[in-house]
Parts: sequence; C-alpha cells; structure tokens
Amino acid sequence: MIELTENNGAVMEQFVSETQCFCLDCDGVIWKGSEVLPHVKETLEGLRKLNKRLFFITNNSSNSRKGYLKKFQSLDLHVDVSEILTSSYAAAVYAKEHAIKKAYVIGGDGIKEELELIGVEACGFEEHLHKTFKEEEFLHEWEEFTKKYPVESIGAVIVGYDNRFNNFKLAMAHQILRRNPQCLFMATNTDATLPYKNNLFFPGGGCFVAALSTAIGRKPDIVAGKPSTLLLDTALHLLYEECKDKVTPENRHVAVCMVGDRLETDIVLGNKTGVKSVCVLTGVATREHLNEIIEEAKQDESKKLLNPQYVLPQLALLRNVVLK
Amino acid sequence: MIELTENNGAVMEQFVSETQCFCLDCDGVIWKGSEVLPHVKETLEGLRKLNKRLFFITNNSSNSRKGYLKKFQSLDLHVDVSEILTSSYAAAVYAKEHAIKKAYVIGGDGIKEELELIGVEACGFEEHLHKTFKEEEFLHEWEEFTKKYPVESIGAVIVGYDNRFNNFKLAMAHQILRRNPQCLFMATNTDATLPYKNNLFFPGGGCFVAALSTAIGRKPDIVAGKPSTLLLDTALHLLYEECKDKVTPENRHVAVCMVGDRLETDIVLGNKTGVKSVCVLTGVATREHLNEIIEEAKQDESKKLLNPQYVLPQLALLRNVVLK
Repeated sequence: MIELTENNGAVMEQFVSETQCFCLDCDGVIWKGSEVLPHVKETLEGLRKLNKRLFFITNNSSNSRKGYLKKFQSLDLHVDVSEILTSSYAAAVYAKEHAIKKAYVIGGDGIKEELELIGVEACGFEEHLHKTFKEEEFLHEWEEFTKKYPVESIGAVIVGYDNRFNNFKLAMAHQILRRNPQCLFMATNTDATLPYKNNLFFPGGGCFVAALSTAIGRKPDIVAGKPSTLLLDTALHLLYEECKDKVTPENRHVAVCMVGDRLETDIVLGNKTGVKSVCVLTGVATREHLNEIIEEAKQDESKKLLNPQYVLPQLALLRNVVLK
Repeated sequence: MIELTENNGAVMEQFVSETQCFCLDCDGVIWKGSEVLPHVKETLEGLRKLNKRLFFITNNSSNSRKGYLKKFQSLDLHVDVSEILTSSYAAAVYAKEHAIKKAYVIGGDGIKEELELIGVEACGFEEHLHKTFKEEEFLHEWEEFTKKYPVESIGAVIVGYDNRFNNFKLAMAHQILRRNPQCLFMATNTDATLPYKNNLFFPGGGCFVAALSTAIGRKPDIVAGKPSTLLLDTALHLLYEECKDKVTPENRHVAVCMVGDRLETDIVLGNKTGVKSVCVLTGVATREHLNEIIEEAKQDESKKLLNPQYVLPQLALLRNVVLK
C-alpha cells in the first residue's frame, strides 16, 4: 500500500501525472451528508485544469444523473452531467445494450427517468405507485396489467431504493419473474442501508432486492452498483472511446483510479476492474481498519481484494500537487 | 422409512394405537387450496372417537387461531380453537413468556389479535397501516411514535406475512432494532411464498423478514414457524400438562407424530423435536422426491433430518384403522 501524503511529494506527483481519469465515490470522499469536505472544491477545479477526466460514481439510484446534478449544484460544485454515473444510469445502459424494450421497476423516479431517456419503457410505473395489494383482486390486476404489457415482452425487473415500496409492486415483480423465465432480475444496488442526514439510516435498496430474491428463490442476475463492476465498466467504455490516446484497456491500471472510502465496495470495485484503488480516510474506512485488513490479507487470499493500492488520507491532499 | 399403507395393516394399527397426539400440517394434508382432501373429514372424526388429541399446525400468521377456525368451518370441518396452532399464536406465547409488554408488528391482523389476547400491545399497528414513507418526515414521525412508545419499552419487532407491507413500517422496525439493541427480532415464519388459490403464489412472510434482516444486518433472533421448533414445542408443553398420563417428554417419540407434506419444514420439525415424522404424498413431496432424499441421506449426514420415519400416502388411509 502506497501512502499519498505531504511527506511523500514525489510519489504523489507521479501519481497525479500518470492518472488521466479519477473515478470518485461521493459520500465520504466529496461530501459528508450535506457538507462538502474541506478544500475539495478547489482540488476538483485543479484536477480539471490539468485536463483530468472526472467521474462521480454513486450506488444511489433514487436520482437520475440530472437529479444528482442538483445535489452538486446545491453544494456549489460545478459538475457536468456527463461526469455523473449513477447505478440507475448503468442499469439503463445495460438494459438498452441487451435489447430490452420494457422493464418493471421497483425503485425511484431516477431509474424511470434513465430508462426513458434511453428508450426503455417502465411498465406500470405511475399506476402502481399507490396500489394496495389485495389477494382476491390480484389475478384481475395481473390480467389487466398483462393485457397492456404481455409478460413475455417485459425483459427485466429492475429493483433499487424505493421509498414508496409496497407489497403490490413486490407481488407484481415476483409474478413477472415467475411467469417469464427469460426476464432478467436486475438490481441497481444491494446496499443494506441508505445514509441520510442527522445520522439517520434508512433501509436501502438491498432490502427490496432481498425481499424479491426470497420470493423468487434466486439472487439478481445483474447488479449495477458497487462492488459489481458494471458502473466502472460503463466509465471505462466511455473513456476508451473518448480519450483513445490516453486511456486504453492496456494502460488502465496506470491511467485510471477509483477513489473511495469503503473497502467492501469502492476498493473491491477498483481492484476487480484492474484500475488503481485509492482509499481515503474521510468516510467509513479508518487507519486501524486498513491495518487490520492488510494483516488479514497476508493470511487470507480472499481478503486481498479489500486491500487498497494507495491510501490518500483526504482527497484535498492532492491540491498540494494540482494547484502548484 | 416405514410404509403406512393398506398392505401393511398390522403396522398401521400399531402406529395408530401407540400415537396419542397427531400434529397435522394443513395445506397438502387436510386440504389443498379451498378443497378438503377426500375422506379427511371422516378420518379426523374417527381419530377423535379414539380420543386422539389433534393439533392443526400452520405457519400462516395472517389469521389468529379464531380467524383460522373460520377456514375450517367454511370447509365443514369441526375443529376446536384449542386444536389450532398458528405461528402468530406461538410468537405471542413466546413474547408473553419473555415478559414482553409491547411489540412492533409487521404483519396481519392475526398477529395483533393473538398478541392482544395474551396481553402484549401491538404499538402503532393501526396508525401505521396506511402511512407513506417520506425521508424528510421520518424523524418527526419517529419522535411522535417514541413519545407514545419509548423505544426501550418495545421488547420485540415481530414480522410475518403482511399484505399491507410498506416502506414506512420497514423503516420504523429497522429504527427500533437499531436504537434498542435489547429488542428481539422475531419472525412468525420465513416462508418464501404463500400459496393461494388458482395456483397463484404470493411473496410470503420470509420476504419481509429478509428485507428487515438486510437492513439491520442480522437474522431473526427467533422464528416461530416451521422448521423452527417453537410451534411444536408449544404443542408439546400443552400436551405434557393436559395428558400427563399419556404424553411425557420421555415417550414423545412414540406418543406424538408430526404429519406433513414438506420435507424441509414439517419433516425436519418432527425430527428435530424428537417426535414421529410422517410424510404424506398429497401435497409437495412426491415418491420420487422421497427416494432421492433417502439416497442422499446415506451419503450426506446433513440430509438426515429431511428423512421421514414414516410415509403415509394420504392421511385418509388411516381411516381403514380408525373407523374399524
């Protein structure tokens, strides 16, 4: 593990100079709750001046990329929508690439918006928002629904964080997967909880995924969010097209880094995707936690993926180099 | 595995004569959907004439025992409420025995009714039935709720099949378990699906348990329903008091049988509880399935519990003996 600190100036300079693209987790890296971390704003501006490509990567599927942009704007961070990668967007891209025309969504408006932007219909989305489940009415509801959307035409059930989750939607999604074995079961993310302000945590997208998994007796076929590689793969494909001369599949282990505060998601994602994994200490991971993992990984091969290649105590330390 | 068939009359006679109590799973044993299986009615009446104690055991927690009684009556089966053991009842008895005064329920009226009958309050049950979850209002809702029911006074969160399941209740239950580490997490059952008529299956109680388990990061502390032993333990405790001279902890492996159609729940339950396990073939288990399990259990110790001691192709075969 390489330290990226003030005392290690030459190493940090080399790190910044060889890295063309910074993939940044948001919560715990850019902000905490509703506050931007100190000096992050000028660090991002400095990276931009050096022509570094930035991606802001989030598992949160409640918002579309456009919706997420507002969060950045509200924090006075200047970001382009093309720099934002949400799990809702990655799921929509995946659906599109797999010729899916119709999907059933358990999730927020973010998923629906991304699907529609890309040309995938979110069947019954509005109609089912406030439905009440009644056993004796379900067969009728099902017949009405499948008259409009034949079950074999529904290519995916996509599940993410859904603050309006109800049993009607769960029963519908279950019935679709049961009656159409070709239908993909996709999760935008499997996060157990959703951090909210005031130190509140709410049940996360993973809870709704677990409910449907239990009913249908199988895990999701595809998970878009971290630690699945789909989000970062989406970023890499964009990079290979956009910056052909700078980023290639062959040099991604040098030219691209994934910066995050959670070993189990961000760091595993970076390591699995073959880019540089960078752990900050401004969020979940602590120095003690890191030291433990390093020790455990020596004994236990399965922990190796949790091991970041770099530790950068705070993202803002990069400004020593980028603002020079 | 001993066959209880017409060709095996002496064995069947001995089986009936030594068995004092028949614990019977309902769906697939007594009825299928909304139809009583052939000759079950007179078989039950015959068993009663021989002074056999009957228990009807169900994982279904939607109904209280009183509610379940109506199902029997609607099928023209004469049953006393004291013969019915639902997972909602077993959960309520457990709560009472553990000095729990208040519980938070994700589930149907059956759980609430059983709790109230036994003197446990179902906090916020009516108020939360039709709540809509909104992140920004949750803290206020939580404060209102805990003003009425201080979180440390809530001894259990009890989760079962809930056709009115919504995200508000999930978030409340999650918050209670998070803020009161002493609070028990109880499940009435962990059934993945609920069989309904017209060959329909709905997401079962296990789905809601899985959602909360995911959020809180632990499995339920207590499961009342099969294959957990709580339901049958409840029956055995009643028997030891009620029929002291006939059923004792020492002779239960002879005097009590558990009859069911599912190896993973009914048969495992019988075997774990040390009573005679009897598999019927009028429900889920088939002869082929049984033969496979017997072969597998020879190789794999962990499959032994799935192995019934007796196979009784249909419950009604007993009438050859009991109506003699």
